[in-house]
Amino acid sequence: MSPAASPRAATTPAYRRLSVEERRTQLLEAALSLFAHRAPEDVSLDDVAEAAGVSRPLVYRYFTGGKQQLYEAALRTAADALEQCFDEPPEGPLTARLSRALTRYLAFVDEHDTGFSALLQGGSVVSTSRTTAIVDEVRRVAAAQILAHLPVTDPGPRLHMMVRTWISAVEAASLIWLDEDKQPPLVELRDWLLDHFVAVATATAASDPQTADVLRAALEMEEPDGVAGSLARRVLPVVSDAAHLL
Amino acid sequence: MSPAASPRAATTPAYRRLSVEERRTQLLEAALSLFAHRAPEDVSLDDVAEAAGVSRPLVYRYFTGGKQQLYEAALRTAADALEQCFDEPPEGPLTARLSRALTRYLAFVDEHDTGFSALLQGGSVVSTSRTTAIVDEVRRVAAAQILAHLPVTDPGPRLHMMVRTWISAVEAASLIWLDEDKQPPLVELRDWLLDHFVAVATATAASDPQTADVLRAALEMEEPDGVAGSLARRVLPVVSDAAHLL
Repeated sequence: MSPAASPRAATTPAYRRLSVEERRTQLLEAALSLFAHRAPEDVSLDDVAEAAGVSRPLVYRYFTGGKQQLYEAALRTAADALEQCFDEPPEGPLTARLSRALTRYLAFVDEHDTGFSALLQGGSVVSTSRTTAIVDEVRRVAAAQILAHLPVTDPGPRLHMMVRTWISAVEAASLIWLDEDKQPPLVELRDWLLDHFVAVATATAASDPQTADVLRAALEMEEPDGVAGSLARRVLPVVSDAAHLL
Repeated sequence: MSPAASPRAATTPAYRRLSVEERRTQLLEAALSLFAHRAPEDVSLDDVAEAAGVSRPLVYRYFTGGKQQLYEAALRTAADALEQCFDEPPEGPLTARLSRALTRYLAFVDEHDTGFSALLQGGSVVSTSRTTAIVDEVRRVAAAQILAHLPVTDPGPRLHMMVRTWISAVEAASLIWLDEDKQPPLVELRDWLLDHFVAVATATAASDPQTADVLRAALEMEEPDGVAGSLARRVLPVVSDAAHLL
């Protein structure tokens, strides 16, 4: 019987007290995974305690402001993760960089579907000026990253408006995509959004000299099998009948 | 003294009791003009009573739900007005029709600046799932009008997504425009949004046969001095150096 003399020691890991920061992270991760796939009103502190395997009083001790505070903290965690999606080294054609960042962004949308919709569609019980500010900060970081990659240090109002409206279009397309059971496939949605970016940049370049300079420099670095080249070859047959406009 | 014998009759209009519907309309108009230029939290029922020249109990009698109910009713009135902006006879080049509708829409944004921002930026004390539903209904009507003008009766997912993301871009651009003290001039903003529409439709046509058919038919009706012709002539010099992509 000697091998079984101390069965608990063999099967139970040594008990280790989590630090305050580790416990907080554990609770936030549990909360985020719940908020990601349920509407905020369908998540209770009991659910979070159960998902994290802790008591409800413990959750309350860490988040004295209750569900609202927990939601905002989980949103802050999600916003940090989303901002990391935009990190991309400044190498290679611009559309290839944008494609990689967009792939990560759309994977995030895919993984946090219900929470993403609830957050951006508004009217949620937990939406406040603070949650709006967190979302706006993510948009600001995304715009700053794109402008840094163009690269532009002093963007004029037109270039800024172009980038910010494209980000809005990406959000709107993501919501529609979630609403339509994630159709078309993520890669097709991404490629359409990349075409969309090149098209809007080109249209803006038509009336804004700064955007025109940026676009010319970006197109020089594009490769024939990249986004811009593929779009140009597919657009030509569509507009070839419109010579009467030139 | 005889001409002044009855001074009140000469200067005061005969008292007429407003019907319930007329009174309601009067209160809603007063509320809408206040909500248009102040944040919802800065409008009280006292303010509405004063603006309409009636007692506060009267306002409460018509809107027993208090400010929230009044706000939602005023929003409903604004939504109706906004939906009328999209009415346009199906005649002439598509971009000319879109230009007229967009001119009316942007004039509405200009006239309801603060209220428009507060409504769409979210996090407002009066935003609820009902206010979100009213705004979504306006977007739905706008998309249906554009699709009817294309004209398409059975839009596929790509065409639908193109139209809906452009509407999001219009909203985002409107908010940025309000935030930047209404710069650039409204006409320049409108013309950029029209270029934006043509560009995104063209990029979508590059990968969607239905959009390609719609675009070809629309371009046939365009005139050289119209939106598409002007855009095409301004785009060519910008992209002419990118022949290596073809």
